[in-house]
Amino acid sequence: MRFKTIEWIGDRVKILDQRMLPNQTVYRIVRTPLEMSVAIRTLRVRGAPLIGVATAYGLVLGMISSKANTKEEFLEDFNKVACALIDTRPTAVNLRWAVERMKKVVNEINCRRESFNLNQVKQRLLEEALKIHEEDKKICDRIGELGSSLIKNGFKIMTHCNAGALGTTGDGTATAMIYNALKEGKKIKVFVGETRPLFQGARLTCWEMLQNGVDITLITDSMVGWFLKKEKINCVLVGADRISRNGDIANKIGTYSLAILAREHEIPFYVASPVSSFDLAIENGEQIPIEERGREEIELIGRNRISPDNVSIRNPAFDITPSKYVSAIVTERGIIWKPNERKIVKLCLKEV
Amino acid sequence: MRFKTIEWIGDRVKILDQRMLPNQTVYRIVRTPLEMSVAIRTLRVRGAPLIGVATAYGLVLGMISSKANTKEEFLEDFNKVACALIDTRPTAVNLRWAVERMKKVVNEINCRRESFNLNQVKQRLLEEALKIHEEDKKICDRIGELGSSLIKNGFKIMTHCNAGALGTTGDGTATAMIYNALKEGKKIKVFVGETRPLFQGARLTCWEMLQNGVDITLITDSMVGWFLKKEKINCVLVGADRISRNGDIANKIGTYSLAILAREHEIPFYVASPVSSFDLAIENGEQIPIEERGREEIELIGRNRISPDNVSIRNPAFDITPSKYVSAIVTERGIIWKPNERKIVKLCLKEV
Repeated sequence: MRFKTIEWIGDRVKILDQRMLPNQTVYRIVRTPLEMSVAIRTLRVRGAPLIGVATAYGLVLGMISSKANTKEEFLEDFNKVACALIDTRPTAVNLRWAVERMKKVVNEINCRRESFNLNQVKQRLLEEALKIHEEDKKICDRIGELGSSLIKNGFKIMTHCNAGALGTTGDGTATAMIYNALKEGKKIKVFVGETRPLFQGARLTCWEMLQNGVDITLITDSMVGWFLKKEKINCVLVGADRISRNGDIANKIGTYSLAILAREHEIPFYVASPVSSFDLAIENGEQIPIEERGREEIELIGRNRISPDNVSIRNPAFDITPSKYVSAIVTERGIIWKPNERKIVKLCLKEV
Repeated sequence: MRFKTIEWIGDRVKILDQRMLPNQTVYRIVRTPLEMSVAIRTLRVRGAPLIGVATAYGLVLGMISSKANTKEEFLEDFNKVACALIDTRPTAVNLRWAVERMKKVVNEINCRRESFNLNQVKQRLLEEALKIHEEDKKICDRIGELGSSLIKNGFKIMTHCNAGALGTTGDGTATAMIYNALKEGKKIKVFVGETRPLFQGARLTCWEMLQNGVDITLITDSMVGWFLKKEKINCVLVGADRISRNGDIANKIGTYSLAILAREHEIPFYVASPVSSFDLAIENGEQIPIEERGREEIELIGRNRISPDNVSIRNPAFDITPSKYVSAIVTERGIIWKPNERKIVKLCLKEV
């Protein structure tokens, strides 16, 4: 990729501001966990895998500036920062997953009953965040390698939102499969749904795919069914923000419609996701909290008001696609065909 | 309605400029058939029934200013103006239907072998246009009366685009059913898809329904499937731009997806349409031409560019919903359940 979505630079974090794309490529410096929370909440940093990494860095920012003098104060600070970060966006489980990974580092030092040297703990937290970051890149690579086998030469692919490099620190999830298939010399055409309200498809997926030489066509979300039919699309490829134990998929609003439309046209529906987006604690999709965002995302586009100001508006950012519509989930540990609880638990608990 | 979408005022036509809604209520004067063509093409005047009326008035504007001195010159002028008007938008059949009605007037005078008095012919054309206008209002009323029987107390209804008063000269088609049901004291909630790219749902349906005291909620097109499920919608109600002999429906892009999603959730899918939108000359939806509009409607919203300027964009304005997904078509002559060729031909040829 010609861009880095996030980068640790000494004592701060540099992020690519995704709200400014595709018109401007702006990098911003994030100095505090509060700034990171705001960046996540306002979607300057977005995509389940990327907000996992951003959360880890946010925790590091909070702890290196912590004024705690004792272990107890340190642990209290840690919990405060962690809770604030987790609370920014409720649907993607990667925030919580990253916090758990970081907490484990602290707990391990604590359990070893060694001296709880605050500077050493801070250093270990930074190392862990960098490790999470590094792993994320490799996970993208692996999903790309495994998943590109699903893409044949000449395929027409439909995608939604941005399960892309911009949503990770590597080549993306769904997009890694596409970039890999292209590297293997396969000819591919990709149809990108614009993804209202925030146009992640139009703004982000188009931007990064053009940079990578992908043959893409932008359509509105309302055109999805029609293009699946008229263009004889070969497969649908999306990401996930959280996957329940039974294989239900929380992903960007519109995914549920797309999955039903794919099935009606007998088109395989693939989900690309790191194992970190699975939430084994959650039995099925009904239990996944759905973030409801502000009305301004729908009624205002820039300064253009597109609806009367006294109309009721709903804005759920995600929907749940029941596993029965999912042909396969592509993870870094393998492809789960016809996902169900048994297969998912087995894959998640597999030693790596 | 508190507004008139179109009005004959002496020797000109006054139109409500629907591109300016909901932010501004602007009326414009149309003086020539060319101005009417532009108004239709740019969607200042839109909706199949309304553009039928607008076409008739456009023809009158052309013929009253015709400099023809002979019958032959007059007929030549008539054909020129008619063709230009028909060519503005290819999908809605009501343009052609209105031209045919007007042509019949000319032909009848011509066939009677009376003197072809140009001023009298012009007067008869105006009378016919005013009659088409008057009939359209009554058709809306009748669709409203017949169709409201499909709407029960407590219903939640999903609609798309604007099959509304704004698309007609009366109470609308789909909306007439809703306004009628409300008059009958039924409690109704309506969910309106914003209808990208031109936001007819957000801009127009919300605007007119708020004026009529309807309980509405605006959502994006990507939310349709999710809301059909989560809100347990009772029926979907849309309009039509052309209906082929076998009952396939050309309507605003997004209708096809909505129909499939409705069926998946076992929700009745109703189409409200005047008989003038049926095209018996066309066997099935495959033969209906689909208007492809400019890329700027998708990539630009006001001055906001929402996609990279070098990306390919497709913008079909309509799609075709096969009749198998249609529960019923509500017309001014009756409701056609499970539409098919036999039922449609019978209804269209019924003496009225």
